[in-house]
Amino acid sequence: VFDTIGIDVGGTKILAGRVRPDGLIVARLQVRTERASGRGILTQIVRLVRELAAGDDDLHGVGVGLPGTIDQRRGVVVQAANLPMAEAPAREVLGRETGLHVVIENDANCAAVAEHRHGAAAGYRHSVMLTLGTGVGGGVVIDDRPFRGATGAGAELGHIVIDRNGPPCPGSCNGHGHLEAYCSGTAVTLAVEAHVAANPGGSVARSAHGDPADGHLALECAANGDPEAIALLVDAGNALGQGLVTLAHAFEPEVFVIGGGFGEAAQSWILEPARRVLRAEAMDPMSRIPVVPSQLGGDAGMIGAAELPRLG
Amino acid sequence: VFDTIGIDVGGTKILAGRVRPDGLIVARLQVRTERASGRGILTQIVRLVRELAAGDDDLHGVGVGLPGTIDQRRGVVVQAANLPMAEAPAREVLGRETGLHVVIENDANCAAVAEHRHGAAAGYRHSVMLTLGTGVGGGVVIDDRPFRGATGAGAELGHIVIDRNGPPCPGSCNGHGHLEAYCSGTAVTLAVEAHVAANPGGSVARSAHGDPADGHLALECAANGDPEAIALLVDAGNALGQGLVTLAHAFEPEVFVIGGGFGEAAQSWILEPARRVLRAEAMDPMSRIPVVPSQLGGDAGMIGAAELPRLG
Repeated sequence: VFDTIGIDVGGTKILAGRVRPDGLIVARLQVRTERASGRGILTQIVRLVRELAAGDDDLHGVGVGLPGTIDQRRGVVVQAANLPMAEAPAREVLGRETGLHVVIENDANCAAVAEHRHGAAAGYRHSVMLTLGTGVGGGVVIDDRPFRGATGAGAELGHIVIDRNGPPCPGSCNGHGHLEAYCSGTAVTLAVEAHVAANPGGSVARSAHGDPADGHLALECAANGDPEAIALLVDAGNALGQGLVTLAHAFEPEVFVIGGGFGEAAQSWILEPARRVLRAEAMDPMSRIPVVPSQLGGDAGMIGAAELPRLG
Repeated sequence: VFDTIGIDVGGTKILAGRVRPDGLIVARLQVRTERASGRGILTQIVRLVRELAAGDDDLHGVGVGLPGTIDQRRGVVVQAANLPMAEAPAREVLGRETGLHVVIENDANCAAVAEHRHGAAAGYRHSVMLTLGTGVGGGVVIDDRPFRGATGAGAELGHIVIDRNGPPCPGSCNGHGHLEAYCSGTAVTLAVEAHVAANPGGSVARSAHGDPADGHLALECAANGDPEAIALLVDAGNALGQGLVTLAHAFEPEVFVIGGGFGEAAQSWILEPARRVLRAEAMDPMSRIPVVPSQLGGDAGMIGAAELPRLG
């Protein structure tokens, strides 16, 4: 029944919170990520933990969510797309310098754990979450526990193939036709750019008024009922549905949770097409798995990170 | 340390064996599947169990592998593509009529368990097996236990999407572009038919001598070094590789095992292309997961079924 500390390290900011067992955030801090070195980022985390711990001996531990691939056997960040943390021995350094039990985890796995314990997947034992943001992250909960694969690198659900003849992955991956190439914010920006170039007199192009033709523009136009913009987002939703077909057949979760910055902003247009594809193309009983929006928003990663030390 | 009985129910035959804890088959029986009714199949299984048990009270239980979707909560076959077993309450009927502890399971999951315990994946804790036959089946072992999804319907790995614009699934599924549409025996037969129709003067067409232009023909021609036939099988191997990229990113197993009748017959041509795609297109460390052929052949399903009662 002790509090824990959750840290969500992002490419631009680090969120830190002291979290109660019921998921309530009782104190929070935020700093800009010092992207110059992995060592600097670990120092920032230590400072945030000390400030939130404030001499309290009753803390149960620290969970740290990181945007990259984790090797749980060694407690090391294998690679992180946007941060200089490759091979950083995060668990050992943070444990030694905070004197607390430290767990590190992929950030999308943290979000999945948070939604599972306190959000959209509460009450289920098996859930799969996709975070649609700059990239597409994934988190899987099986029997109430985060699923990590053999070394902790699994559940990279943005990199499932949905079109073997599709475009290269916009993220740091050598593959092509991956889910991330269709329904990340980056992918939608690329689609909007291509659409505007091909339709310079179209409604989306005219709405830009010289601003960048990106995913934000599509969301703004769609909110105003622009059918061109809505069609672009529905395309992303259809692709998302194909990804859900794969994940339904592979994991058979009880629920799919769709979150992430882009996922939350676009949910009015992408969720229904995604559900339709799942209903039409997955086998029973998987075709009936509910697809719901995330509930914890930008705090999901931090709240989920704080759950990790409790999971043992 | 007691023996168990494993039953592998197929569309044409039922294999039954009495199996030692070390995987050795000490007695075996085989009958033709009485496809007229699900009740008839259950009666066949009961008869096989009684014969193999032969009054021995030291049996530890019975495992039954079935070619369909299982609901583990109810112990029921939800659907089986080629057998009239929909909604058959297999676990209850077999338990009552044999007086033994009965576990039912999808047949590809059984094969995966067998390879994990006694075959190509022995020594690993996390493995994914694909059985390439008439269709494509899948089995996943996580932490030394079969993974089944929320109700037992998961790990339908033949139905992961690899091309959202691809052809309809040849099996009983409403989807399209699934792995099964590229690297099952059925899919390769369709590819050979199309190839022969388009190239009536080609080497594969000429080798047919009026026999059906199917997967067997492609294997026979490839064994004789026919480059047309080899190219068709390499296509299937490349598609298999795309499926492995998805499964590597989703499950991060320590090893992939490729089996099934077609998979075993075609391994000389499909495994290397599949490995090449995985190496080139998956992220580290998943790109380095070994891809190995199955070792237990046609007995895998029966041996794996016999393991189930031991798993508790």
